[in-house]
Amino acid sequence: MPKREIPPVALRPERYAVGIDLGGTNIKFGVVSAAGKIVRRARIPTLAARGPKKALRRVVATIRRFARDYEIAQVGMGVAGLIDHKLGIIRLPPNLPGWDGTPVKDIIEKATGIPASVGNDVNACVLGEHLFGAGKGRRDVFCLTLGTGIGGGIIANGRLVVGANHAAGEVGHTTIFPDGQMCKCGSRGCLECYAGAEYIVQRALALLRTLGPKLKSRSLIRRYTRNHPENLTTKVISRAARHGDPLALEVIRETGYYVGLGIANVIHLLDPEVVVIGGGISGFGKPLLTAIQATVDERTPRFEDWRLEIRLSELGDDAGVLGASQFRRYI
Amino acid sequence: MPKREIPPVALRPERYAVGIDLGGTNIKFGVVSAAGKIVRRARIPTLAARGPKKALRRVVATIRRFARDYEIAQVGMGVAGLIDHKLGIIRLPPNLPGWDGTPVKDIIEKATGIPASVGNDVNACVLGEHLFGAGKGRRDVFCLTLGTGIGGGIIANGRLVVGANHAAGEVGHTTIFPDGQMCKCGSRGCLECYAGAEYIVQRALALLRTLGPKLKSRSLIRRYTRNHPENLTTKVISRAARHGDPLALEVIRETGYYVGLGIANVIHLLDPEVVVIGGGISGFGKPLLTAIQATVDERTPRFEDWRLEIRLSELGDDAGVLGASQFRRYI
Repeated sequence: MPKREIPPVALRPERYAVGIDLGGTNIKFGVVSAAGKIVRRARIPTLAARGPKKALRRVVATIRRFARDYEIAQVGMGVAGLIDHKLGIIRLPPNLPGWDGTPVKDIIEKATGIPASVGNDVNACVLGEHLFGAGKGRRDVFCLTLGTGIGGGIIANGRLVVGANHAAGEVGHTTIFPDGQMCKCGSRGCLECYAGAEYIVQRALALLRTLGPKLKSRSLIRRYTRNHPENLTTKVISRAARHGDPLALEVIRETGYYVGLGIANVIHLLDPEVVVIGGGISGFGKPLLTAIQATVDERTPRFEDWRLEIRLSELGDDAGVLGASQFRRYI
Repeated sequence: MPKREIPPVALRPERYAVGIDLGGTNIKFGVVSAAGKIVRRARIPTLAARGPKKALRRVVATIRRFARDYEIAQVGMGVAGLIDHKLGIIRLPPNLPGWDGTPVKDIIEKATGIPASVGNDVNACVLGEHLFGAGKGRRDVFCLTLGTGIGGGIIANGRLVVGANHAAGEVGHTTIFPDGQMCKCGSRGCLECYAGAEYIVQRALALLRTLGPKLKSRSLIRRYTRNHPENLTTKVISRAARHGDPLALEVIRETGYYVGLGIANVIHLLDPEVVVIGGGISGFGKPLLTAIQATVDERTPRFEDWRLEIRLSELGDDAGVLGASQFRRYI
């Protein structure tokens, strides 16, 4: 552990950081105070297909607009993909076809004169939760984002762990069933094949087909989708569960079991003090958390006074913007 | 990543460090130069059952003996168990009954006046390999020790990761088969239940029983154990494999598959540049490494120029002493 403690946020109170969450559809901005409050927000469409140059021109314009009203000390951006954290170059972004190799850091710095950092979007989330959210004050934090894909980010010893190839934290592609189904990634039995959004929906539909006519007629999932299974989403499952639908609850319980298997392995390897669950699927809420906790308890026998909490994200959608705003000190 | 690079070894050339590997049977010592060479060695019996006080008195006497001939700047000790790295207290040591709670750091410092650090034995190994061995010059290293138990140690960003409960790196208890056999730890399907020494031996015996009389009569394992299966050890399997025994090679291949499953998950989570395989079972050598590599390649689809090597330990039995000698700067 470093002998000298570094204060988490290095901004003088009168200075601000801009955090940017660059997605395939939208670019979200936040002007973040030294206390971790978002004092101004903006959102512009990515229009990714028109290429990175045009989009980044609009990003730069937005930063300049902020700079008229705030003293901006640093800019940070989170992007899905294998980001070169050191050079600030986007590599193989899944949602930004044609953007591979874009030197985002350089472009922003040259255009604005403000130091910029670029990192993976899930790394932004874990940093946000570590500095301002559910992992505040804890030196060892793991954050999972559950959605279409399943991502992970690591804070160990109070520092971001990016790995030798900028690819650390890929909990979604850890194997939970060695002989399980093929994953798009080329491996087999990955956590994502069981707890990714589309697989959850598929499982719910498969379960629905096994119901007898009486139970089927009572199913809230069936009612909410108006008997059009193609309309089923994890949000519908969430809503059905809140109203007590047994099949929806069973699907959530199963999802929690799978996620719990992945988290138990994370706990054995990293021994985090807090595991934070974020992303859209974390909207399953309490029943999901309960099932995760039960699996983790079964799989990670722990001693008394063991420091471990599994919590839902506190920052929700803001985690990425808040974390990215503080990348400078961490990558 | 820290902006300021810290040189790995902080000793002035004329100063030395003492590394100690405290095992259930023996205590091994090394006087380590700033260049990472062991310039003097000692080994005394632990006599663990007589209690920690007597053993530590002999440890202190040995350190004092060294201090007559060398300027000793620091002492470090690696011990199996859940060590409080900060306070230097041994907790729940599996091989030292009655030693729970022993404040080893305090005892050594008070008696010798030399700064002492105490850490987990596998953390000592990974630090040794990182500073002086197969992981030299790499900032992200994972080390597995394969033996009766399976341990792991993590270097991330050039720093030791001990976790919130001093329990990080426990790759032996990550689940590889969720519905697998019960483990002594209370969980199920742990890597250790498939690749721990006694399970390897059991598997070899089970395979031996399935052989027809002709193949059985040719089995080197059967010959080396003189038809006494209770004499079978992993060393015998190793020897039989070196002489081409098909059953021994099959057992090693299977072991590599299991270890590979565990390592693949480590790679997804930590993205190390080097994975170092140590411990007695690493004596299986090349066939083990080949099987591990094949499984990892299947499970972790990687891009071109990906930085990852899986290597056998370079320091062997010395890793623990060498790493422990440098604990001071890392824990």
